[in-house]
Amino acid sequence: MTDIFTGLSAFPLTPLHDDTVDETAFAGLVERLATVGVDSITALGSTGSYAYLTPDERARVARLAVEHAGATPVFVGVGGLRTSQVLAHVDSAEAAGAAGVLLAPMTYQPLTHDDVFELFRTVTEHTRLPVIVYDNPGTTHFTFTTELYARIAELPGIASIKIPGVPTDPHQAAEQVSRIRSVIPEHVTIGVSGDAFGAPGLIAGCDAWYSVIGGILPEPALSITRAVHEGRPDDAAAESQRLAPLWELFSELGGSLRVTAAIAEHLDLAPRKCLPLPIQGLTEDQRARVAHVVDRLGLG
Amino acid sequence: MTDIFTGLSAFPLTPLHDDTVDETAFAGLVERLATVGVDSITALGSTGSYAYLTPDERARVARLAVEHAGATPVFVGVGGLRTSQVLAHVDSAEAAGAAGVLLAPMTYQPLTHDDVFELFRTVTEHTRLPVIVYDNPGTTHFTFTTELYARIAELPGIASIKIPGVPTDPHQAAEQVSRIRSVIPEHVTIGVSGDAFGAPGLIAGCDAWYSVIGGILPEPALSITRAVHEGRPDDAAAESQRLAPLWELFSELGGSLRVTAAIAEHLDLAPRKCLPLPIQGLTEDQRARVAHVVDRLGLG
Repeated sequence: MTDIFTGLSAFPLTPLHDDTVDETAFAGLVERLATVGVDSITALGSTGSYAYLTPDERARVARLAVEHAGATPVFVGVGGLRTSQVLAHVDSAEAAGAAGVLLAPMTYQPLTHDDVFELFRTVTEHTRLPVIVYDNPGTTHFTFTTELYARIAELPGIASIKIPGVPTDPHQAAEQVSRIRSVIPEHVTIGVSGDAFGAPGLIAGCDAWYSVIGGILPEPALSITRAVHEGRPDDAAAESQRLAPLWELFSELGGSLRVTAAIAEHLDLAPRKCLPLPIQGLTEDQRARVAHVVDRLGLG
Repeated sequence: MTDIFTGLSAFPLTPLHDDTVDETAFAGLVERLATVGVDSITALGSTGSYAYLTPDERARVARLAVEHAGATPVFVGVGGLRTSQVLAHVDSAEAAGAAGVLLAPMTYQPLTHDDVFELFRTVTEHTRLPVIVYDNPGTTHFTFTTELYARIAELPGIASIKIPGVPTDPHQAAEQVSRIRSVIPEHVTIGVSGDAFGAPGLIAGCDAWYSVIGGILPEPALSITRAVHEGRPDDAAAESQRLAPLWELFSELGGSLRVTAAIAEHLDLAPRKCLPLPIQGLTEDQRARVAHVVDRLGLG
């Protein structure tokens, strides 16, 4: 378990204030994650609003993340709609000292499998940084197949695949992870995302949990991750079950980003209205529900 | 019919060459449209690859479009993922001399109806240019409702709504257009897009056709538009039917953009590989099919 692409990778928000990155708040979030001891920090994931930031903002956030993460490895999201823009983001992640890059095939026009393969080929040929394949159909609207995972994972430089979730049934979950494992090289890790799938994904054999909740509430996410890796899957499942009210808010209130931002604001870790417009974030009523759940679960 | 938001609005490609806008090719496409006599030109629509271009490239393309369009009104696509970026695109469209702007609610994180309403409110308050509401769920993954059309159309400054298509059945098509018409102010026009829906949409009562094929093959698109407006719907339907092999290619080969680019390349109106990577465009076999259809229909 010395591979940096295993364990808990925490995805911090990039809080904005008046349409400008709140660098103090961001640095605070990163330091908090490093202090708690997450295995890696992924800056500029979907939760880090990479898709909304300018190249200069992204370069600056990447630098801040590395500066404030101490010895914790930092991965940086480099997705963009145009290949040349992706390469520029890769360059700024490299310059910042990132330990790896995370690449989602963002789409406006739908992309073919060949388009996406060539994007990954171009990026892996461009950089010596390890690349995490970021499968997030809810935001990219691109659907990977196991065959495409296999084709991309053969590229030198691919380090990990971030899958969007696993089936609810534990046997089916384990089967799905095994199926992916059987077609990719041994050095490529598999990480689960979608926080409700964290415990079931790790139990099913994923090496890593690419976690949104880990970016704002690292302790419970870390305790789930450690429990699985120490051979206590029932403890992991119980802790994930305890957090079920949070997973319900994620699915009821339009995804994890708005809820996570509301948690950050409730805990005074980010300024009010910290998401990039046009995303307005939760209503007052919804925020009150989030605060209630966080307090009731003792997460504050 | 003096409203500039009626008739045929032609959407030119923005051809790239080696990842740079081919300004000569773009100017040539715009001049061709103005010469043929389309009613308006919409630069930087989805077909104009607005989502892939930098703010500077978009400002430059807007200026080129106005410079080369002569007396033909030019609308400019101003969509972006972040509200502040949209406002910057609006400013550059204004500076270029655009007659209106076209705004699609691009998404990465899914947007709520309130998010999208506030985006349109912010833009209409920011500019005196008329705004076309751009409903294009295939690329934005945002779904408008008739209620949301009504709410947005009440905003001062909204000039037109670009709807993605109409039902195949003519009665249902007319009903749908009437239903939208009944909830929006009289001065707001309705334009159909999706080229197979051009003739049926105009026949069903749409005021405008926001047309991709009109951007590369303006003559047949103009003849369809004129036929409907001169009370010859059967002629329009017959011409649209004659072009059915094109509509089939659009749906079979992954949408209109790649096919339109292949047509432009076949007619020497754009350089080879004119789309922004990672979009590779059609394969050689697919290009040959497109060329065959264009030649057989006498569109070359």
